[in-house]
Amino acid sequence: MLGKCIENVRETTPLVHNITNYVTVNDVANVLLACGGSPIMSDEPDDVVDITSICGGLNINIGTLNKSSIEGMFLAGKRANELNHMVLLDPVGAGASKLRTDTAVKLMDEIKFTVIRGNISEIKTLALGSGTTKGVDADVADAVTDETLDSAVKFVKDFAKKSGSIVAITGAIDLVADGDRCFVIRNGRPEMGKITGTGCQLSGMMTAFLVANPDNLLEAAAAAVCTMGLAGEIGWANMQEGDGNSTYRNRIIDAIFNMNGAILDKGAKYEVR
Amino acid sequence: MLGKCIENVRETTPLVHNITNYVTVNDVANVLLACGGSPIMSDEPDDVVDITSICGGLNINIGTLNKSSIEGMFLAGKRANELNHMVLLDPVGAGASKLRTDTAVKLMDEIKFTVIRGNISEIKTLALGSGTTKGVDADVADAVTDETLDSAVKFVKDFAKKSGSIVAITGAIDLVADGDRCFVIRNGRPEMGKITGTGCQLSGMMTAFLVANPDNLLEAAAAAVCTMGLAGEIGWANMQEGDGNSTYRNRIIDAIFNMNGAILDKGAKYEVR
Amino acid sequence: MLGKCIENVRETTPLVHNITNYVTVNDVANVLLACGGSPIMSDEPDDVVDITSICGGLNINIGTLNKSSIEGMFLAGKRANELNHMVLLDPVGAGASKLRTDTAVKLMDEIKFTVIRGNISEIKTLALGSGTTKGVDADVADAVTDETLDSAVKFVKDFAKKSGSIVAITGAIDLVADGDRCFVIRNGRPEMGKITGTGCQLSGMMTAFLVANPDNLLEAAAAAVCTMGLAGEIGWANMQEGDGNSTYRNRIIDAIFNMNGAILDKGAKYEVR
Repeated sequence: MLGKCIENVRETTPLVHNITNYVTVNDVANVLLACGGSPIMSDEPDDVVDITSICGGLNINIGTLNKSSIEGMFLAGKRANELNHMVLLDPVGAGASKLRTDTAVKLMDEIKFTVIRGNISEIKTLALGSGTTKGVDADVADAVTDETLDSAVKFVKDFAKKSGSIVAITGAIDLVADGDRCFVIRNGRPEMGKITGTGCQLSGMMTAFLVANPDNLLEAAAAAVCTMGLAGEIGWANMQEGDGNSTYRNRIIDAIFNMNGAILDKGAKYEVR
Repeated sequence: MLGKCIENVRETTPLVHNITNYVTVNDVANVLLACGGSPIMSDEPDDVVDITSICGGLNINIGTLNKSSIEGMFLAGKRANELNHMVLLDPVGAGASKLRTDTAVKLMDEIKFTVIRGNISEIKTLALGSGTTKGVDADVADAVTDETLDSAVKFVKDFAKKSGSIVAITGAIDLVADGDRCFVIRNGRPEMGKITGTGCQLSGMMTAFLVANPDNLLEAAAAAVCTMGLAGEIGWANMQEGDGNSTYRNRIIDAIFNMNGAILDKGAKYEVR
Repeated sequence: MLGKCIENVRETTPLVHNITNYVTVNDVANVLLACGGSPIMSDEPDDVVDITSICGGLNINIGTLNKSSIEGMFLAGKRANELNHMVLLDPVGAGASKLRTDTAVKLMDEIKFTVIRGNISEIKTLALGSGTTKGVDADVADAVTDETLDSAVKFVKDFAKKSGSIVAITGAIDLVADGDRCFVIRNGRPEMGKITGTGCQLSGMMTAFLVANPDNLLEAAAAAVCTMGLAGEIGWANMQEGDGNSTYRNRIIDAIFNMNGAILDKGAKYEVR
């Protein structure tokens, strides 16, 4: 089932507008191309409305935000909402600085996001901080493990219900939920944490999956998570003696380039709760 | 003949100032080093005049333009013109937003470019939009193919004549023309489109070729196009099972690193019309 | 002895705040992860104080400075000083433009740097230009070679004494000195100069080494230089036919990923003067 989601990306070449950080932007662009999408980057307030209008989806990543790009995020997000485009929020560093937390919370208040994707710490910050999501019990553990899984699944479903967005928490175990269902995903390798930006890459790719699968958004988001994790497994299996995190980065993107529906269906490891 | 152009780059190590987008900037720098040039990046208006003054060429790429970098483009371009430096325009996304189109057209009005390099869509936008180039018939097909080649050659020559710049249109078939002659180039691989920024890389490298070959500018521009396309062929021939677009990016830059005049002369596929 | 320094990085995972250029920032992040550190990037003035407060070290690189990031550098640097964090200055391009020279000199005047790391040209510019360092004889040769070594060692020690910072000059022979001792390091390969940003990568990594070795700062800085150079040697030894500078970049970062104390102690080539 999830395999069909990546096939739909390859058949429709969704155009994704990315307002993203300058650290990992090149990898985000190459991952979007690898999975069958097409990237455009623009953060200038005078440019973003035109650019997002010709795209199918918008990926907002606050990783190296600045005053100008923040303005661009709001303008692009509102325009994307008017056009009923897919819009994803990656709240990089929410909780680490007041500006990042405030920006992410304000984005959630003013823009409707199809998906919010982050690590457990970032998502907890948003759950606590957002006016629209008050009341969510964020007293959940700081890592999703088998021991904390039940409470984490409840938390992510609750936050999804209150926020009206699909919520994806990525880590050792990944959770992708709307208010009713939660995909619990066990693809991936711990060594992916030694590469900068696998989360940013996933957010870009996920936006393409959403655009290509408008009638199955939860499955699309879960398929993107499985694709990234499975690529991490395949890439790691291909590592040679002397290889390290730089080569691993290349091998993961390469594995996405070579991914198809059959590989994904065979390798995806998940249950739905 | 074209082989001599890359030899001249390696012998003179031209210093190229790049005002370019943050998506592909690292690859642009590494390609410039691979071909024998030396890159400097700077877009701050208070910095660009000094930086461009110590260089031999300026590469202006509007891919992730912002208000500040646009100001830097005009300041650097005018200074480079005063110093009779080589100046190249890569109008990334012209036609996709009003800001990009207006900026590219205004740059053409105020700065003399040695070369304008883009895809057919971007170049058509400039041909229609620029005050200095009014009258060029841009009613040419949206792709350069064997069927549309005659009209495309006429278009690129006309636009080169009117604009006073060498014009390079890259795609499945590449065209590099001044008002009189057009190099029709058939190097390259379609898979290069699955890597972000091969066009940006070419623009950076081409600027170095221009600086190193001031007496043969058209040949220099054509040699850069052939070098990029041939590197794409060599890189593809070196692909192993499991490799994808990320490794392909590395192999292309590697192939440029290993390119010399003999390899280029043997592998370049072009005719002059 | 130096081997212990990288072991300490791996054991403590120092968090490093980088205000660095957008050309090489991805490699800086991956090198920090490769050596066992953890990177955060932020240059927005409204964000940097919070971000630097949660880190152990700050790496300021002026490579693509702009008005906003310059403001961020001063704010972050002063906050890092208040917190007694490690702070490193990489004065990229000092001497190449007035803005870069003035910014680097002003940073030295207002912020106490644990280490200043640059090439001989940049360091000479700072030695001549800084009010706090007037009187240093910068009439030293423009390259550190066996012929110029004595005067270069004297220069770097003098500048370290006057500036109150450890000073690292990298080139064919690397010098890392405080006012009393100078590590003369002969690791590395000339081909490293064909990759963009090995200096930037070193600065990021060195900051992590400083944070992890607060009681042996000179050794920590020297260990980072040896690690980078040795990785360049190991990476070069792993090059295959057809490889070039792009693959070399990956192999160097990979070699750092696989570096440990024993490899470093065995491969480090230095004397102390």
